[in-house]
Amino acid sequence: MNDPTCDGFLDGRLRILQPKHGFRSGADAVMLAAACPARMDQAVLELGCGAGVASLCLGWRVPGLRLVGLERQPDYADLARQNAAGNGIALEVLTGDLARPPLGLRARTFDHVIANPPYFLGGTPAPDKGRAGARREDTPLSAWIDAGLRRLRPGGILTLIQRADRLDAILAGLAGRAGATVILPVAGRAGQPAGRVILRAQKGARGPLRLLAPFVMHQAPAHPGDREDLTPTARAVLRDGSPLASMLSNPA
Amino acid sequence: MNDPTCDGFLDGRLRILQPKHGFRSGADAVMLAAACPARMDQAVLELGCGAGVASLCLGWRVPGLRLVGLERQPDYADLARQNAAGNGIALEVLTGDLARPPLGLRARTFDHVIANPPYFLGGTPAPDKGRAGARREDTPLSAWIDAGLRRLRPGGILTLIQRADRLDAILAGLAGRAGATVILPVAGRAGQPAGRVILRAQKGARGPLRLLAPFVMHQAPAHPGDREDLTPTARAVLRDGSPLASMLSNPA
Repeated sequence: MNDPTCDGFLDGRLRILQPKHGFRSGADAVMLAAACPARMDQAVLELGCGAGVASLCLGWRVPGLRLVGLERQPDYADLARQNAAGNGIALEVLTGDLARPPLGLRARTFDHVIANPPYFLGGTPAPDKGRAGARREDTPLSAWIDAGLRRLRPGGILTLIQRADRLDAILAGLAGRAGATVILPVAGRAGQPAGRVILRAQKGARGPLRLLAPFVMHQAPAHPGDREDLTPTARAVLRDGSPLASMLSNPA
Repeated sequence: MNDPTCDGFLDGRLRILQPKHGFRSGADAVMLAAACPARMDQAVLELGCGAGVASLCLGWRVPGLRLVGLERQPDYADLARQNAAGNGIALEVLTGDLARPPLGLRARTFDHVIANPPYFLGGTPAPDKGRAGARREDTPLSAWIDAGLRRLRPGGILTLIQRADRLDAILAGLAGRAGATVILPVAGRAGQPAGRVILRAQKGARGPLRLLAPFVMHQAPAHPGDREDLTPTARAVLRDGSPLASMLSNPA
């Protein structure tokens, strides 16, 4: 792995080592953490935790969680362990593949599972192994959902962030196994199609699906150069580590 | 059937006879018509056309369509024929069940199929037969989607309006058979969850799903008594018969 950089998240409240050129977490990982309605003393598993950004943002917001991250690539898992220690947040990082989870993990269940599955399908491998592993989808989306649901206790909550154009594949993966699904579209600007969706579903539930009003990232109709123009809600989530209020009503 | 009333649609441009107490079309039918990207000379089938509101709104907007409505309940089919004649719009109304369509219809294909399937599942039958037939879902949503896709030519467009909490069932019905799906959430007010979704999908296509910014009906954060407070976009669609611009890019 190339030399890591040290980046600030949550307005510098977290200092995160990430590879300079491989897969690098950003706003999506922070929003995933903000969407997870975990409460003190609950157990949370992150599938594909990378350098640990989402789990550490969640651990920063909610004290007393039992956080576990599963990561296939040993060098990312090592970074996640360093980042947990460096930020003083307890995060147990397991190295392993979600499609063949380590034996110790298979015996455990969680109140929450969170994941930000890779966004890009197959194609030409990127030159950097880390980037290729994290961004190419050699593990299909259905396997992420399946692994997440298996590790949840009955009534536990799966929270995902994914490209909006995968909404159908995610709902297909959940069908008949989880319900009370809540969809939060994430749009760059008001009036634009969603680029991402955040989904929350409850294992074994049968409640109706809800499609929320979009979470809008930027205020201006077009990008005003390098002036930051986050909406107040996006600023609260990305800079202050606030939870996504619309996702917080917690059935579990 | 009880005595019909005569109601104005599109700011009185259409005069529609509807049963006083049975199923009565409203904004949903007008929005369905506004979402259909049919062009002159194309053939359009409406499944479950009721008194014909959606088809007639579409025929009012787009001249030269070949419009066919299929309706299971003979008294509604009769009203649809009267409404077509009364408004001077050519609409062929067939009486029959979409799950067992009339033989003549089975031999025909269409550029567009539109439908506003019933919103309420089973339960206690309403006292009025018309209401019970139109609002109770004795024909499952999957049968509506199946019938629609069968009647489309390859590359033809299915446009539906439905309760937002059925989004998963609709996408499941389309899976593997239609693509380039566009989802338009419809919300009563900005910031509220969607109450309805309008979906457009292309038969046999493989293009990515798009989740659009919501169509918002009302301007004020709460209802200001009996003052009309439609957003400018909702007013253009419901009063002026304008198309839903965000749905109009027509792959067919």
